[in-house]
Amino acid sequence: MSKLFEFVENGCITTPVGFKASGVTAGLKASGNADMALIFSEMPANFAGAFTSCLFAAAPVQLDRQRVLNSKSLQAIIVNSGNANACTGQKGLKNAEETCVMTAEKLGIEAESVMVSSTGRIGVQLDMTKIVKGVELAVNALTDDGGHIAARAIMTTDTVPKTTAVTFEIDGKKVSIGAMTKGAGMISPKMTLPHATMLCYITTDAKIENALLAKMLEISVGLSFNRITIDNDMSTNDSCIIMANGKSGAIVSEDSSAGELFQDALNALLENLAIAMVKDGEGATKLINIKIHGAASRGDAEKAAKAVANSMLCKTAWFGGDPNWGRVAAALGYSGATFEQEKVDFYYNSKPVIKNGQDAGTPEKELAAEMAGKEFTISCYLNAGTATYNVWTSDLSYDYVKINAEYTT
Amino acid sequence: MSKLFEFVENGCITTPVGFKASGVTAGLKASGNADMALIFSEMPANFAGAFTSCLFAAAPVQLDRQRVLNSKSLQAIIVNSGNANACTGQKGLKNAEETCVMTAEKLGIEAESVMVSSTGRIGVQLDMTKIVKGVELAVNALTDDGGHIAARAIMTTDTVPKTTAVTFEIDGKKVSIGAMTKGAGMISPKMTLPHATMLCYITTDAKIENALLAKMLEISVGLSFNRITIDNDMSTNDSCIIMANGKSGAIVSEDSSAGELFQDALNALLENLAIAMVKDGEGATKLINIKIHGAASRGDAEKAAKAVANSMLCKTAWFGGDPNWGRVAAALGYSGATFEQEKVDFYYNSKPVIKNGQDAGTPEKELAAEMAGKEFTISCYLNAGTATYNVWTSDLSYDYVKINAEYTT
Repeated sequence: MSKLFEFVENGCITTPVGFKASGVTAGLKASGNADMALIFSEMPANFAGAFTSCLFAAAPVQLDRQRVLNSKSLQAIIVNSGNANACTGQKGLKNAEETCVMTAEKLGIEAESVMVSSTGRIGVQLDMTKIVKGVELAVNALTDDGGHIAARAIMTTDTVPKTTAVTFEIDGKKVSIGAMTKGAGMISPKMTLPHATMLCYITTDAKIENALLAKMLEISVGLSFNRITIDNDMSTNDSCIIMANGKSGAIVSEDSSAGELFQDALNALLENLAIAMVKDGEGATKLINIKIHGAASRGDAEKAAKAVANSMLCKTAWFGGDPNWGRVAAALGYSGATFEQEKVDFYYNSKPVIKNGQDAGTPEKELAAEMAGKEFTISCYLNAGTATYNVWTSDLSYDYVKINAEYTT
Repeated sequence: MSKLFEFVENGCITTPVGFKASGVTAGLKASGNADMALIFSEMPANFAGAFTSCLFAAAPVQLDRQRVLNSKSLQAIIVNSGNANACTGQKGLKNAEETCVMTAEKLGIEAESVMVSSTGRIGVQLDMTKIVKGVELAVNALTDDGGHIAARAIMTTDTVPKTTAVTFEIDGKKVSIGAMTKGAGMISPKMTLPHATMLCYITTDAKIENALLAKMLEISVGLSFNRITIDNDMSTNDSCIIMANGKSGAIVSEDSSAGELFQDALNALLENLAIAMVKDGEGATKLINIKIHGAASRGDAEKAAKAVANSMLCKTAWFGGDPNWGRVAAALGYSGATFEQEKVDFYYNSKPVIKNGQDAGTPEKELAAEMAGKEFTISCYLNAGTATYNVWTSDLSYDYVKINAEYTT
């Protein structure tokens, strides 16, 4: 089957029509790099958001959840990096609100149609003098092709901006979905609606009702960001927000072929960005896809995949290029999934590693060769049922320790 | 209250009377270090064992579980390091059985009263020629004061042997409990009866019935080994075995003051060794005690303590001596424990870090000073109930990565 959508070369959040964006330097980062981004829709847009399930939810997350409950439409998202505005109490909430109010005033819209996100150091109050300056700069810098600049401004320990877009046709009308994301550490999202420090902003010029948008976002997040882990640390600030401004004229409704196409395209877009995040994970040198087949239940498949994906011993062995598969077996064994060890098979790419719970006989050198690339897959067959799940993860390197033993934004 | 028991200087598994031990080199380790140990009781001893709950349980663990179910007494334990005899199928089980049979023959006892343990690389069959030689050497080398030599022979990535003993009086009779343990990686035990690559062997000259011994062991393991983590990786081979030969003449029965004293002494002994294991954890430079107070339930307290103890971001911050307490807050927040962030307080030793979910105002330098030592405590008050739990953990260093990216015994 040919794909009915296409990735857009250099696609970004301003690929869909009717969106502007900017990225500016407010001075929140010691590095002097860009640290504030603004996304703006020419017209009020439908929207949905997924946020962290961490109980220490940051002030902007608390405010954005209220927007999801109370606002009918969204027109702008103002983002700062360099400070998470988390564990900052009532003052933090007030600062988040003020940031929205200022942004709305400068844009000539209502504060209720502005969301705010923050990422960076936890526990420090925002420097509002810098935020005031940043908001003004960001509004003035808005352009039709500002998506790439915005993507740079939301980075923290990321080494590359992560942005993409897809395009397809509905009823002869060209529709686009663009997105940008950041996150290289504290990555093990478990985003729920209306809950999702990864940040992801998605724009589309299709017309979709809020309820359907929320449903589609939940499906896509469940297949992408909720299946990645870098360090098994969930953030206080994870947020994933989608805006649909309808400017293309194309209507996406439930249980339609257009709806199916939009979902497929959104799934592909977010999977692409989720994988890009893992590749750019703190200190990561490899992307490993852990695939579980034949689990007794979906829950078992997820537990087994996450145990292997988060095992520090597996992650260091992958970094070292050491086939040491006993660590994979041990992780499956303690995962909580039910199976009989005598029935388990697993593979590094297509090379059999264990068969019936024992060494499959593939020479170590051949296994090491499979692990030598930048990407490989570990496929585990538990032979205990029919459920499947996969998790994308990274290895654990000296640089991970260096970045996190020395990181204080 | 003064303690009614005392730690014995240079105490070990041969401190209790009627036990002999040895440690020898069978050639299983490439390093040429000692790799087989034998523990022998002059008379049949009562016993109990706790083993890994990992579904990929190693061959010796499978065999030892049968001993717990079917044998009335135990007289010897033969241990090898350098090879875990895990994921080795029927051949691995046969090799474990043969090891017991050979040991029994050399000692002139029944094979059913011999247990076997293995630790080291997973997935490789034992070299039985070396095991035959090792058993013979180990039997011939048995001595009344072989406990320290035995403790060296069970080491893998450990940097120091870990052995201790306590002594006390029951009805005017001197009683001792000695123990040795190993384990520096793949340490996050969850040992259950009759299930527990940490290895721990405990000897005592008290007389105690098997059922009571099992009950007491379960309590002590729950307060010690099951509360430590180095890398959150549970092993295929975790085993904790206690032998009580009764030679002191002192009888320990249930619901007696002697029983209470024995339990207290056993708790202190295993806590001492559990902490020693964490201090000697792979690459560890610090011991951190995570204490949770005021949780809504014991389960919540355990989840919260383990989330912080296993957080890679917390562990790297501790290594770097960085007070970065937002990482502790995030881990509490995603732990699954229920609480309100506005009610949470926590401390580094006695210095307040957050109060009511926000910065308590202690200068960073003062917090950093608390973390500068080899040991510190993080006390978290969730103010959501009355349950408590604690976990001892280590930091995550460059050496952890080095040891595990390059380790292939």
